[in-house]
Amino acid sequence: MARGRRAGPTRTRTAILDAARASFAARGYDAVSLRGVARRAGVDPALVHHFFGTKSALFAAAMELPVDPGSFVATLAAGDPATLGERIVRALVELWDGAGAFAGMLGLIRGAVSHPDAARLLREFVSSEILGPLAASAAPDHPQRRAALASSQIIGLAMARRIVAIEPLAGADAAWLAAAVGPAVQRYLTEPLP
Amino acid sequence: MARGRRAGPTRTRTAILDAARASFAARGYDAVSLRGVARRAGVDPALVHHFFGTKSALFAAAMELPVDPGSFVATLAAGDPATLGERIVRALVELWDGAGAFAGMLGLIRGAVSHPDAARLLREFVSSEILGPLAASAAPDHPQRRAALASSQIIGLAMARRIVAIEPLAGADAAWLAAAVGPAVQRYLTEPLP
Repeated sequence: MARGRRAGPTRTRTAILDAARASFAARGYDAVSLRGVARRAGVDPALVHHFFGTKSALFAAAMELPVDPGSFVATLAAGDPATLGERIVRALVELWDGAGAFAGMLGLIRGAVSHPDAARLLREFVSSEILGPLAASAAPDHPQRRAALASSQIIGLAMARRIVAIEPLAGADAAWLAAAVGPAVQRYLTEPLP
Repeated sequence: MARGRRAGPTRTRTAILDAARASFAARGYDAVSLRGVARRAGVDPALVHHFFGTKSALFAAAMELPVDPGSFVATLAAGDPATLGERIVRALVELWDGAGAFAGMLGLIRGAVSHPDAARLLREFVSSEILGPLAASAAPDHPQRRAALASSQIIGLAMARRIVAIEPLAGADAAWLAAAVGPAVQRYLTEPLP
Protein backbone atom coordinates (compact mmCIF):
# COMPACT_ATOMS: atom_id res chain seq x y z
CA MET A 1 0.00 0.00 0.00
CA ALA A 2 1.50 3.34 -1.08
CA ARG A 3 2.00 5.93 1.63
CA GLY A 4 -0.14 9.02 1.06
CA ARG A 5 1.36 12.52 1.05
CA ARG A 6 0.13 13.52 4.49
CA ALA A 7 0.87 16.85 6.16
CA GLY A 8 2.98 15.11 8.83
CA PRO A 9 5.00 16.90 11.50
CA THR A 10 8.13 17.29 9.34
CA ARG A 11 6.24 18.78 6.41
CA THR A 12 4.29 21.08 8.71
CA ARG A 13 7.47 22.23 10.45
CA THR A 14 9.12 22.87 7.07
CA ALA A 15 6.09 24.83 5.86
CA ILE A 16 6.17 26.97 9.00
CA LEU A 17 9.91 27.66 8.62
CA ASP A 18 9.47 28.59 4.95
CA ALA A 19 6.62 30.93 5.86
CA ALA A 20 8.70 32.42 8.70
CA ARG A 21 11.66 33.14 6.41
CA ALA A 22 9.37 34.79 3.86
CA SER A 23 7.64 36.85 6.57
CA PHE A 24 10.86 38.03 8.22
CA ALA A 25 12.44 38.87 4.84
CA ALA A 26 9.43 40.93 3.80
CA ARG A 27 8.47 42.64 7.07
CA GLY A 28 11.51 42.70 9.36
CA TYR A 29 11.43 41.28 12.87
CA ASP A 30 9.10 43.46 14.90
CA ALA A 31 6.06 43.39 12.60
CA VAL A 32 5.96 39.58 12.28
CA SER A 33 3.64 37.57 14.58
CA LEU A 34 3.34 33.82 15.12
CA ARG A 35 -0.29 34.21 14.01
CA GLY A 36 0.77 35.84 10.73
CA VAL A 37 3.34 33.10 10.05
CA ALA A 38 0.66 30.46 10.71
CA ARG A 39 -1.69 32.16 8.26
CA ARG A 40 1.02 32.29 5.57
CA ALA A 41 1.88 28.61 6.18
CA GLY A 42 -1.79 27.62 6.12
CA VAL A 43 -1.66 25.99 9.57
CA ASP A 44 -3.33 26.54 12.92
CA PRO A 45 -1.50 29.13 15.10
CA ALA A 46 -1.50 26.57 17.93
CA LEU A 47 0.82 24.41 15.82
CA VAL A 48 3.36 27.22 15.49
CA HIS A 49 3.30 27.66 19.27
CA HIS A 50 3.60 23.90 19.69
CA PHE A 51 6.67 23.60 17.44
CA PHE A 52 8.54 26.80 18.34
CA GLY A 53 7.07 28.42 21.45
CA THR A 54 8.24 32.00 20.90
CA LYS A 55 8.91 34.33 17.99
CA SER A 56 12.61 34.48 18.90
CA ALA A 57 12.85 30.66 18.87
CA LEU A 58 11.04 30.56 15.50
CA PHE A 59 13.46 33.19 14.15
CA ALA A 60 16.46 31.23 15.46
CA ALA A 61 15.21 28.05 13.78
CA ALA A 62 14.39 29.82 10.51
CA MET A 63 17.80 31.56 10.39
CA GLU A 64 19.70 28.50 11.69
CA LEU A 65 21.04 30.36 14.72
CA PRO A 66 22.72 27.98 17.17
CA VAL A 67 20.72 28.90 20.29
CA ASP A 68 17.36 30.22 21.37
CA PRO A 69 17.97 33.96 21.90
CA GLY A 70 15.51 33.98 24.81
CA SER A 71 17.46 31.54 26.97
CA PHE A 72 20.81 33.02 25.84
CA VAL A 73 19.73 36.46 27.07
CA ALA A 74 18.11 35.11 30.25
CA THR A 75 21.35 33.35 31.25
CA LEU A 76 23.43 36.49 30.71
CA ALA A 77 20.94 38.78 32.44
CA ALA A 78 20.90 36.53 35.53
CA GLY A 79 24.59 37.24 36.27
CA ASP A 80 26.35 40.22 37.87
CA PRO A 81 25.54 43.41 35.90
CA ALA A 82 29.08 44.68 36.62
CA THR A 83 30.58 41.89 34.48
CA LEU A 84 27.89 41.82 31.79
CA GLY A 85 30.12 43.24 29.04
CA GLU A 86 32.80 40.58 29.45
CA ARG A 87 30.22 37.81 29.73
CA ILE A 88 28.41 38.95 26.57
CA VAL A 89 31.64 39.01 24.55
CA ARG A 90 32.78 35.63 25.82
CA ALA A 91 29.40 33.95 25.26
CA LEU A 92 29.04 35.34 21.75
CA VAL A 93 32.58 34.43 20.70
CA GLU A 94 32.09 30.88 22.01
CA LEU A 95 28.78 30.74 20.14
CA TRP A 96 30.28 31.94 16.84
CA ASP A 97 33.16 29.48 17.19
CA GLY A 98 30.86 26.46 17.47
CA ALA A 99 30.94 24.10 14.48
CA GLY A 100 28.80 25.60 11.72
CA ALA A 101 27.31 28.06 14.18
CA PHE A 102 28.44 31.22 12.40
CA ALA A 103 26.61 30.41 9.16
CA GLY A 104 23.32 31.96 10.29
CA MET A 105 25.00 35.11 11.62
CA LEU A 106 27.03 35.40 8.42
CA GLY A 107 23.83 35.11 6.39
CA LEU A 108 22.24 37.92 8.40
CA ILE A 109 25.31 40.16 7.98
CA ARG A 110 25.66 39.41 4.24
CA GLY A 111 22.00 40.18 3.77
CA ALA A 112 22.28 43.41 5.75
CA VAL A 113 25.08 44.86 3.61
CA SER A 114 23.19 44.09 0.37
CA HIS A 115 19.51 44.77 1.12
CA PRO A 116 17.85 47.43 3.31
CA ASP A 117 15.09 44.95 4.24
CA ALA A 118 17.66 42.50 5.56
CA ALA A 119 19.41 45.33 7.41
CA ARG A 120 16.10 46.15 9.11
CA LEU A 121 15.66 42.50 10.05
CA LEU A 122 19.11 42.30 11.67
CA ARG A 123 18.62 45.65 13.41
CA GLU A 124 15.19 44.82 14.82
CA PHE A 125 16.17 41.32 15.92
CA VAL A 126 19.37 42.39 17.71
CA SER A 127 17.62 45.32 19.36
CA SER A 128 14.40 43.56 20.36
CA GLU A 129 15.78 40.20 21.44
CA ILE A 130 19.47 40.52 22.34
CA LEU A 131 21.00 43.85 23.30
CA GLY A 132 17.76 45.71 24.11
CA PRO A 133 16.75 43.26 26.87
CA LEU A 134 20.35 43.01 28.10
CA ALA A 135 20.71 46.79 28.31
CA ALA A 136 17.36 47.05 30.08
CA SER A 137 18.50 44.41 32.59
CA ALA A 138 21.71 46.25 33.48
CA ALA A 139 21.42 49.93 32.60
CA PRO A 140 20.27 52.82 34.75
CA ASP A 141 18.87 54.73 31.75
CA HIS A 142 18.62 54.98 27.93
CA PRO A 143 18.49 51.23 27.16
CA GLN A 144 18.04 51.82 23.42
CA ARG A 145 21.02 54.16 23.17
CA ARG A 146 23.15 51.73 25.20
CA ALA A 147 22.00 48.74 23.14
CA ALA A 148 22.84 50.57 19.91
CA LEU A 149 26.35 51.47 21.08
CA ALA A 150 26.99 47.93 22.33
CA SER A 151 25.66 46.58 19.01
CA SER A 152 28.23 48.64 17.13
CA GLN A 153 31.06 46.97 19.06
CA ILE A 154 29.55 43.48 18.85
CA ILE A 155 28.85 43.67 15.11
CA GLY A 156 32.35 45.06 14.57
CA LEU A 157 33.87 42.23 16.60
CA ALA A 158 31.98 39.64 14.52
CA MET A 159 33.21 41.35 11.34
CA ALA A 160 36.81 41.68 12.58
CA ARG A 161 37.09 38.12 13.92
CA ARG A 162 35.10 36.07 11.45
CA ILE A 163 34.71 38.03 8.20
CA VAL A 164 37.59 40.49 7.74
CA ALA A 165 39.80 38.17 9.85
CA ILE A 166 41.98 40.84 11.45
CA GLU A 167 44.80 39.40 13.56
CA PRO A 168 45.20 38.96 16.47
CA LEU A 169 41.39 39.12 16.85
CA ALA A 170 40.76 36.27 14.40
CA GLY A 171 42.94 33.82 16.32
CA ALA A 172 42.59 35.08 19.90
CA ASP A 173 40.84 32.90 22.47
CA ALA A 174 37.47 33.89 23.90
CA ALA A 175 38.88 34.74 27.34
CA TRP A 176 41.36 37.26 25.93
CA LEU A 177 38.71 38.85 23.70
CA ALA A 178 36.36 39.10 26.70
CA ALA A 179 39.08 40.87 28.70
CA ALA A 180 40.04 43.18 25.83
CA VAL A 181 36.63 44.06 24.34
CA GLY A 182 34.30 43.37 27.29
CA PRO A 183 35.09 46.64 29.10
CA ALA A 184 34.08 48.65 26.01
CA VAL A 185 30.71 46.85 25.93
CA GLN A 186 30.38 47.27 29.71
CA ARG A 187 30.99 51.00 29.43
CA TYR A 188 28.24 51.33 26.82
CA LEU A 189 25.81 49.33 28.97
CA THR A 190 26.27 50.82 32.42
CA GLU A 191 28.51 53.91 32.55
CA PRO A 192 27.37 57.53 32.08
CA LEU A 193 26.80 58.51 28.43
CA PRO A 194 27.27 61.93 26.78
CA MET B 1 40.82 66.26 -39.56
CA ALA B 2 39.67 63.43 -37.32
CA ARG B 3 41.27 63.20 -33.89
CA GLY B 4 43.31 60.04 -33.51
CA ARG B 5 42.87 57.69 -30.54
CA ARG B 6 45.97 58.79 -28.68
CA ALA B 7 46.98 57.47 -25.27
CA GLY B 8 46.29 60.89 -23.69
CA PRO B 9 46.39 61.62 -19.97
CA THR B 10 42.75 60.60 -19.34
CA ARG B 11 43.11 57.25 -21.07
CA THR B 12 46.42 56.59 -19.33
CA ARG B 13 44.92 57.47 -15.94
CA THR B 14 41.95 55.19 -16.62
CA ALA B 15 44.23 52.34 -17.66
CA ILE B 16 46.26 52.75 -14.46
CA LEU B 17 43.11 52.76 -12.30
CA ASP B 18 41.77 49.64 -14.05
CA ALA B 19 45.10 47.89 -13.53
CA ALA B 20 45.16 49.01 -9.89
CA ARG B 21 41.66 47.63 -9.22
CA ALA B 22 42.59 44.32 -10.83
CA SER B 23 45.85 44.14 -8.87
CA PHE B 24 44.28 44.96 -5.49
CA ALA B 25 41.40 42.53 -6.09
CA ALA B 26 43.78 39.70 -6.95
CA ARG B 27 46.63 40.31 -4.48
CA GLY B 28 45.30 42.32 -1.53
CA TYR B 29 46.87 45.60 -0.47
CA ASP B 30 50.31 44.78 0.89
CA ALA B 31 51.64 42.75 -2.07
CA VAL B 32 50.77 45.37 -4.71
CA SER B 33 53.45 47.85 -5.84
CA LEU B 34 53.21 50.92 -8.07
CA ARG B 35 55.72 49.18 -10.35
CA GLY B 36 53.48 46.10 -10.66
CA VAL B 37 50.44 48.25 -11.45
CA ALA B 38 52.45 50.10 -14.12
CA ARG B 39 53.48 46.78 -15.67
CA ARG B 40 49.87 45.55 -15.74
CA ALA B 41 48.70 48.86 -17.26
CA GLY B 42 51.51 48.81 -19.84
CA VAL B 43 52.83 52.24 -18.83
CA ASP B 44 56.08 53.59 -17.41
CA PRO B 45 56.24 53.43 -13.56
CA ALA B 46 57.15 57.14 -13.55
CA LEU B 47 53.68 57.90 -14.94
CA VAL B 48 51.99 56.09 -12.03
CA HIS B 49 54.08 58.16 -9.60
CA HIS B 50 53.27 61.29 -11.56
CA PHE B 51 49.49 60.71 -11.46
CA PHE B 52 49.09 59.27 -7.96
CA GLY B 53 52.26 59.72 -5.91
CA THR B 54 51.74 56.93 -3.36
CA LYS B 55 50.16 53.50 -3.21
CA SER B 56 47.60 54.73 -0.68
CA ALA B 57 46.58 57.61 -2.97
CA LEU B 58 46.32 55.18 -5.91
CA PHE B 59 44.17 52.86 -3.78
CA ALA B 60 41.94 55.77 -2.71
CA ALA B 61 41.44 56.83 -6.34
CA ALA B 62 40.79 53.26 -7.53
CA MET B 63 38.26 52.60 -4.73
CA GLU B 64 36.73 56.10 -4.93
CA LEU B 65 37.57 56.90 -1.32
CA PRO B 66 36.94 60.57 -0.55
CA VAL B 67 40.42 61.46 0.79
CA ASP B 68 44.03 60.45 0.51
CA PRO B 69 44.59 58.12 3.50
CA GLY B 70 48.13 59.45 3.92
CA SER B 71 47.11 63.03 4.63
CA PHE B 72 44.05 61.91 6.65
CA VAL B 73 46.30 59.90 8.97
CA ALA B 74 49.01 62.59 9.12
CA THR B 75 46.48 65.20 10.26
CA LEU B 76 45.11 62.93 13.01
CA ALA B 77 48.55 61.81 14.17
CA ALA B 78 49.70 65.44 14.50
CA GLY B 79 47.17 66.16 17.30
CA ASP B 80 47.17 65.32 21.01
CA PRO B 81 47.47 61.49 21.47
CA ALA B 82 45.18 61.73 24.50
CA THR B 83 42.23 62.78 22.30
CA LEU B 84 43.08 60.58 19.29
CA GLY B 85 40.09 58.23 19.78
CA GLU B 86 37.53 61.04 19.69
CA ARG B 87 39.25 62.75 16.77
CA ILE B 88 39.37 59.51 14.75
CA VAL B 89 35.64 58.86 15.27
CA ARG B 90 34.66 62.43 14.46
CA ALA B 91 36.83 62.62 11.33
CA LEU B 92 35.61 59.27 10.00
CA VAL B 93 31.93 60.04 10.64
CA GLU B 94 32.28 63.41 8.90
CA LEU B 95 34.02 61.65 6.02
CA TRP B 96 31.32 58.98 5.65
CA ASP B 97 28.61 61.64 5.79
CA GLY B 98 30.03 63.59 2.85
CA ALA B 99 27.94 63.47 -0.33
CA GLY B 100 28.62 60.17 -2.09
CA ALA B 101 31.63 59.57 0.12
CA PHE B 102 30.43 56.34 1.69
CA ALA B 103 30.10 54.49 -1.64
CA GLY B 104 33.74 53.37 -1.72
CA MET B 105 33.67 52.23 1.91
CA LEU B 106 30.39 50.39 1.30
CA GLY B 107 31.95 48.66 -1.71
CA LEU B 108 34.89 47.52 0.41
CA ILE B 109 32.59 46.21 3.17
CA ARG B 110 30.22 44.48 0.72
CA GLY B 111 33.18 42.84 -0.95
CA ALA B 112 34.63 41.74 2.37
CA VAL B 113 31.51 39.89 3.50
CA SER B 114 31.26 38.02 0.18
CA HIS B 115 34.83 37.22 -0.86
CA PRO B 116 37.89 36.30 1.23
CA ASP B 117 40.15 38.16 -1.24
CA ALA B 118 38.18 41.36 -0.69
CA ALA B 119 38.28 40.78 3.07
CA ARG B 120 42.06 40.55 2.87
CA LEU B 121 42.16 43.78 0.87
CA LEU B 122 40.09 45.67 3.47
CA ARG B 123 42.09 44.16 6.34
CA GLU B 124 45.49 44.97 4.84
CA PHE B 125 44.52 48.48 3.78
CA VAL B 126 43.00 49.48 7.15
CA SER B 127 45.90 47.96 9.05
CA SER B 128 48.74 49.24 6.84
CA GLU B 129 47.45 52.72 6.05
CA ILE B 130 44.92 53.83 8.68
CA LEU B 131 44.85 52.27 12.14
CA GLY B 132 48.32 50.72 12.10
CA PRO B 133 50.08 54.07 11.63
CA LEU B 134 47.67 55.79 14.04
CA ALA B 135 48.26 53.18 16.74
CA ALA B 136 52.01 53.41 16.19
CA SER B 137 51.82 57.21 16.56
CA ALA B 138 49.98 57.06 19.90
CA ALA B 139 50.54 53.70 21.57
CA PRO B 140 53.20 52.68 24.05
CA ASP B 141 53.22 49.08 22.81
CA HIS B 142 51.51 46.41 20.64
CA PRO B 143 50.47 48.67 17.74
CA GLN B 144 49.02 45.76 15.72
CA ARG B 145 46.91 44.49 18.60
CA ARG B 146 45.68 48.02 19.32
CA ALA B 147 44.95 48.71 15.65
CA ALA B 148 42.96 45.47 15.38
CA LEU B 149 40.84 46.28 18.43
CA ALA B 150 40.22 49.84 17.24
CA SER B 151 39.33 48.46 13.79
CA SER B 152 36.65 46.27 15.33
CA GLN B 153 34.95 49.33 16.85
CA ILE B 154 35.38 51.50 13.73
CA ILE B 155 34.06 48.83 11.33
CA GLY B 156 31.16 48.18 13.71
CA LEU B 157 30.36 51.89 13.87
CA ALA B 158 30.33 52.11 10.06
CA MET B 159 28.02 49.07 9.94
CA ALA B 160 25.73 50.36 12.72
CA ARG B 161 25.45 53.93 11.39
CA ARG B 162 25.41 53.48 7.63
CA ILE B 163 24.47 49.88 6.81
CA VAL B 164 22.34 48.34 9.58
CA ALA B 165 21.10 51.88 10.47
CA ILE B 166 20.69 51.34 14.21
CA GLU B 167 19.14 54.34 15.97
CA PRO B 168 20.20 56.59 17.59
CA LEU B 169 23.60 55.92 15.94
CA ALA B 170 22.27 56.37 12.39
CA GLY B 171 20.91 59.87 13.10
CA ALA B 172 23.33 61.13 15.77
CA ASP B 173 25.66 63.99 14.96
CA ALA B 174 29.41 63.48 14.66
CA ALA B 175 30.17 65.31 17.91
CA TRP B 176 27.91 63.05 19.98
CA LEU B 177 29.30 59.91 18.34
CA ALA B 178 32.85 61.13 19.01
CA ALA B 179 31.99 61.63 22.68
CA ALA B 180 30.18 58.28 22.98
CA VAL B 181 32.43 55.99 20.91
CA GLY B 182 35.74 57.89 20.97
CA PRO B 183 36.70 56.77 24.51
CA ALA B 184 36.37 53.10 23.48
CA VAL B 185 38.76 53.69 20.56
CA GLN B 186 41.06 55.71 22.83
CA ARG B 187 41.16 52.87 25.34
CA TYR B 188 42.19 50.41 22.63
CA LEU B 189 44.90 52.76 21.35
CA THR B 190 46.61 53.94 24.54
CA GLU B 191 45.45 52.17 27.72
CA PRO B 192 46.89 48.93 29.15
CA LEU B 193 45.69 45.77 27.36
CA PRO B 194 45.15 42.30 28.82
